[in-house]
Amino acid sequence: MHTDGALAGFDCPTCGRTHAPDDVETTCPDCGDPVTPAFDPGALAKALDARTHDATGIDRFAPAIGFDSDSRVVSLGAGGRTVVDAPSLASELGVESVRIADEGRNPTGSAVDRELAVAVSVAAERDAERVVLPSTGNAARSAAAYAGRAGLESLAYVPSRTAFLEKAMTNVHGGDLSVVEGRYADAAAAYDSADTEGFQIGPDSPFRQLGAATLAWDLFGKQPNSPDAVVVPVGHGTRLAGFFAGLSALKEMERLDSLPELYAAQPKGCAPIVTAHEAEGEIEPWDTPDSVIGPLEIPDPAVGSLALDALAASDGDAVAVPDDDALAAAVDANATTGVEVSATGGVALAGATTLAEQGALGSDVSVLVVDPLAAAAESDILRSQLMSRGI
Amino acid sequence: MHTDGALAGFDCPTCGRTHAPDDVETTCPDCGDPVTPAFDPGALAKALDARTHDATGIDRFAPAIGFDSDSRVVSLGAGGRTVVDAPSLASELGVESVRIADEGRNPTGSAVDRELAVAVSVAAERDAERVVLPSTGNAARSAAAYAGRAGLESLAYVPSRTAFLEKAMTNVHGGDLSVVEGRYADAAAAYDSADTEGFQIGPDSPFRQLGAATLAWDLFGKQPNSPDAVVVPVGHGTRLAGFFAGLSALKEMERLDSLPELYAAQPKGCAPIVTAHEAEGEIEPWDTPDSVIGPLEIPDPAVGSLALDALAASDGDAVAVPDDDALAAAVDANATTGVEVSATGGVALAGATTLAEQGALGSDVSVLVVDPLAAAAESDILRSQLMSRGI
Repeated sequence: MHTDGALAGFDCPTCGRTHAPDDVETTCPDCGDPVTPAFDPGALAKALDARTHDATGIDRFAPAIGFDSDSRVVSLGAGGRTVVDAPSLASELGVESVRIADEGRNPTGSAVDRELAVAVSVAAERDAERVVLPSTGNAARSAAAYAGRAGLESLAYVPSRTAFLEKAMTNVHGGDLSVVEGRYADAAAAYDSADTEGFQIGPDSPFRQLGAATLAWDLFGKQPNSPDAVVVPVGHGTRLAGFFAGLSALKEMERLDSLPELYAAQPKGCAPIVTAHEAEGEIEPWDTPDSVIGPLEIPDPAVGSLALDALAASDGDAVAVPDDDALAAAVDANATTGVEVSATGGVALAGATTLAEQGALGSDVSVLVVDPLAAAAESDILRSQLMSRGI
Repeated sequence: MHTDGALAGFDCPTCGRTHAPDDVETTCPDCGDPVTPAFDPGALAKALDARTHDATGIDRFAPAIGFDSDSRVVSLGAGGRTVVDAPSLASELGVESVRIADEGRNPTGSAVDRELAVAVSVAAERDAERVVLPSTGNAARSAAAYAGRAGLESLAYVPSRTAFLEKAMTNVHGGDLSVVEGRYADAAAAYDSADTEGFQIGPDSPFRQLGAATLAWDLFGKQPNSPDAVVVPVGHGTRLAGFFAGLSALKEMERLDSLPELYAAQPKGCAPIVTAHEAEGEIEPWDTPDSVIGPLEIPDPAVGSLALDALAASDGDAVAVPDDDALAAAVDANATTGVEVSATGGVALAGATTLAEQGALGSDVSVLVVDPLAAAAESDILRSQLMSRGI
């Protein structure tokens, strides 16, 4: 990872320092709070323009995120432009347009592939033997895939409720799993107390934000018809923080006139970021997390403060939706758009409906809804929603 | 679908006639045998060159396959270049290079999305109210997605052994299922005897071959480093036949010096195409189909004769592999390449290993292995393979 390029370093909003990439593994080396990527606008502009048409997915952005062409970026073709127009949803919501970023089409079925491709590549460059992380499931699977390709071991702590598909594919990729009885918080606590040896690529990894920034570059900038508003389902906040970092860089480069409004959607049963945003306060861990949508049942978000910053800076908002509304929205979108919208993506869709009803998304607004996950991992709860309709 | 363009019509190899696209729904209107797309090389060259960079996936080929820009092509962004380099497999096989076409990254997790996008679009253009088909599962799911988007109904006959994921997602997309006790042959027989009303988009649909031809155009022609040999797992033969039609057109257009060698791989427990190829005879239905790999357990291939033609014309071959070898090859590839290789794709990988051992794939040969399916649909049998290793 070269540090003379577009990645200027990692900013710590708490203590105000910028750290060289090589000095950082997870949080701020000084104060322990989350850090976020900072870019040199001139160098980034040059790096983005230099991207070759041969490379697909996030490999196009390798120079921009600090990798030379001979470095061990192991992307598997993650990323790219996964947007599908959803006219049926636009008329339902009464907005100008709705597009869905179908990020489930990434190599292991999730937008975290963008993140883990970068984080595992950094681990490989630093000669790590193993990558370690806590996960609700999809990051475990993705980490195992990239680690296997890079010749590293991987170990993920996941809760017992993790979907069979995620656990099975993690093992199939050769990844090790520590399955912890209970929910995500139990897995995260077990991970913390085990102090497991290895390069840490959990949700507080700023390299994961760096990977998430490529979603912004795939969708904004030189692309025509950039959306006015983006609705993102939020658990830890890693994706939203990285997306925001990518957008901010585009704005500094004057490739965006203004930031799109960013909206965070969470399930009502576990909505610490929504609650903190509404109270204009700090994030309090959620006492009784209760959502069937496992990837979003995150009671103590790893980079929640960065997510709040993104909402504030973009003049956005946060919205909590009942599980039932999210499942219904996902199933309806599967039927009318054809896109395989996950339950996790359904949280964003139901959030968009609420925001439209509240008047936050008007008839002249083009909306992008990010679905970070393939429906395959959640087909059981989607099918159950049909059962509740007697189908 | 305009008929003055690159799609010249559909050829019937049996009776030698070419039929206008509008005269065809499934097989030859005269003799009932399978037909295959025929292209006007000059018009196709023009159509392929005219493709815009804005469009992604098979939408780029819409004019080439007979759709105007205002037609109801409902692709969801299917297709594109899904190739991942697999150096670990190249050294294992002792060939120059191995690349995997990770076609599971299509919208509903399967290469059949290319096929169904086209077939459902034709159904919509012909004002059908419903599309109907027999399926092992993934085409049912894909048909439901595209039909839902196009505002059509869909009804698929599937065997009871079809994976939960495929059945669940078919329903989630609003598709109807007739689940027939038994194996694929039972579902196909039920479909035939029901004489279900609707536009037929089963495996004998030449429009599905037309969609499959886009895989050839995504991988060959102007692409550098075209592979010398392609190994495809084969059930009905639809994908191989369409792929061959696409390649043949490129050769006629002088955008390919010579066809790559095409290799068909089938599970030993159901290998009617391999047997017919080896006997240089006609295809005999397989009496006792027995493979855990459902998508390939096809005892009486719908377009098997076209698949045999493709093997003969490309100087290729056919190979049958035990289920265990296919599962082991898939699991190993998941671990060393990171690509989510399905059991179905594992049949092609194990086939490539056999071909390399036989000397058919030498050290100077670049090999493309087509994995038509996302591993998600087969994660249970992949995970079981690990169990057999004590993991």
